[in-house]
Amino acid sequence: MKIQASDVAALARGCAVLGTGGGGDVRTGALAARRAIQEYGEVPLVRLADLPGDALVVPLSGIGAPTVSHEMIHGEDEPRRIAEEIERIFGRPPAAVMSSEIGGANGVAPVAWAAQLGLPLLDADGMGRAFPEVQMVSMYVAGLPADLVIMSDVAGNVVTIRPVDGLWSERLARAVCVAAGSHALMADYVLTAAGARGAVIEGTVTRALAVGRATEGAADPLGALKAELGAYELITGKLADVERRTTGGFVRGTATVEGTGADRGRVLTLELQNENLVAMAGGRILAMVPDLITVVDTETAAAIQTESLRYGQRVTVLAWPCDPLWRTPKGLETAGPRAFGHDLDYVPVEELAPHE
Amino acid sequence: MKIQASDVAALARGCAVLGTGGGGDVRTGALAARRAIQEYGEVPLVRLADLPGDALVVPLSGIGAPTVSHEMIHGEDEPRRIAEEIERIFGRPPAAVMSSEIGGANGVAPVAWAAQLGLPLLDADGMGRAFPEVQMVSMYVAGLPADLVIMSDVAGNVVTIRPVDGLWSERLARAVCVAAGSHALMADYVLTAAGARGAVIEGTVTRALAVGRATEGAADPLGALKAELGAYELITGKLADVERRTTGGFVRGTATVEGTGADRGRVLTLELQNENLVAMAGGRILAMVPDLITVVDTETAAAIQTESLRYGQRVTVLAWPCDPLWRTPKGLETAGPRAFGHDLDYVPVEELAPHE
Repeated sequence: MKIQASDVAALARGCAVLGTGGGGDVRTGALAARRAIQEYGEVPLVRLADLPGDALVVPLSGIGAPTVSHEMIHGEDEPRRIAEEIERIFGRPPAAVMSSEIGGANGVAPVAWAAQLGLPLLDADGMGRAFPEVQMVSMYVAGLPADLVIMSDVAGNVVTIRPVDGLWSERLARAVCVAAGSHALMADYVLTAAGARGAVIEGTVTRALAVGRATEGAADPLGALKAELGAYELITGKLADVERRTTGGFVRGTATVEGTGADRGRVLTLELQNENLVAMAGGRILAMVPDLITVVDTETAAAIQTESLRYGQRVTVLAWPCDPLWRTPKGLETAGPRAFGHDLDYVPVEELAPHE
Repeated sequence: MKIQASDVAALARGCAVLGTGGGGDVRTGALAARRAIQEYGEVPLVRLADLPGDALVVPLSGIGAPTVSHEMIHGEDEPRRIAEEIERIFGRPPAAVMSSEIGGANGVAPVAWAAQLGLPLLDADGMGRAFPEVQMVSMYVAGLPADLVIMSDVAGNVVTIRPVDGLWSERLARAVCVAAGSHALMADYVLTAAGARGAVIEGTVTRALAVGRATEGAADPLGALKAELGAYELITGKLADVERRTTGGFVRGTATVEGTGADRGRVLTLELQNENLVAMAGGRILAMVPDLITVVDTETAAAIQTESLRYGQRVTVLAWPCDPLWRTPKGLETAGPRAFGHDLDYVPVEELAPHE
């Protein structure tokens, strides 16, 4: 299939459900995607199996604190400069663009980058959701060496990092990002199609489109979204309190939801670092990272991004299982609760949420 | 000629006179140089005219705050990793190492890096002294595009920056340096021998050796050093006060010298940013950057590095003219007083110091 301008709204809606933090505003990403398709044409969506083994796949993402990137739109020069640097390094140009994280703006903006570069988009990503840190990608969990990061900023600088490991990758990329004004476009790993097999999460662009379309014209959007996701409803209520601060390139904080209707008397607290990491109610944990936790508008089922959480919003908090990759020992070491400083043993949402 | 282990002490002494701040302790650099010569052999000192026009010259320097790099010794892996990255980028290995700044540890440590790489050292540098910021090099003043910086740290990371200009080069390199623990080895510009002509300051390794040898066995070391440098004596006295702080990767502060003997009653103040930038006494400026200002031990004429200034030391402050390159409009824009935040019109030391 080809991604057309008319697909962008559904894709953006789906990406917003799959990731609520980093990478900027999904509306900004959707705007850029629509404009680029109008100017450069529709973007072919390809599967890994469609590409020759030595074809170069570029996983791209915006890096930065969402409260900054909210305000920014990437120019067309950043993807071009990264593609040029890849051709300098590998002696051949990239063959496809991949979203590093399907969740949030970084799920939809790659449509724009692919269109600008005249390349197809791979139906895959490196997370199956969104994570706030650079090393939290399936390529790292699959054991691919985190040996190349290429960054490009709005000023026109290009920085290539050959880190010794994923943690150094994150540390150096974050420092460059902050120096560049807390926003940059990044290629994290450059993959051959052969090397990407088993190291990326396939089908996630198609999945985001399906999630976005589930609520389109539905009589019961929330029910339709829950069914499409296989999600548990953790609470429905009113946003009572939001505490957020931007530190070290991240948005951190907590959000509190007071139950209404059938949930009256219950209070749910969310711990945030760009994404919703842990959901607690009545002294019990109901869901935790790397499982997905998303706050949606109770009426429209539209996801609410971390930076848009406001006192008084009528919301429902949903949670559902992550890709199995994240439940492996290396997956949990990389993006389990302890990777975010929460001293918790991971328990799958299927074992926690139903007992509520 | 070849630089032998027995030359290192004189070279280090001369480099200490030509730059008193960044790049670490000259003794650490000298130790590394002697060890590397013992292990890998003597280092040929070559002139630009000796190299084919397409030979690649790598200007290397340690970057960091001296109070940090004081404690650190570069491993052998950093120069090797930078040389590998150069070969990856240019398709051929470097042919010679150059000191980015002849002043301080960065003047003598390149002997070690050249020995480790099995390469000759070019008899030239990019400053003819030392400066605290990355863009303050002759290549920048000569109009060469600051389009490539390669950094390597003790952890093994390699970062390649393609900055849009010299100021971005400094900003991004400094951020990477701080993230890497406030210390890294850096290749700033990679030059062809043909491109280096007129864009580097030639003969400065030979000059540093001559400065270092001037005081060897001299009955009047201070007199011998002044004669070799053509330096003005600004004051002889006692270090009365030193204020230093490490901020943003730099050592900044002031030092005050109270005159003794013939200078009794006079007080001289030095403004510091890694290097001595401005010397004032009795409400008058006696010397300012880019001219050289160095504090030496009155008895031995050994230079005292910024981080080693201590209350009570018996010192003489010398000043002498910089390379003519720094007195051009672009030179002064790059490294004149205003480039360091001092709102002063540059006046050559020859016009200021003699009137004292």
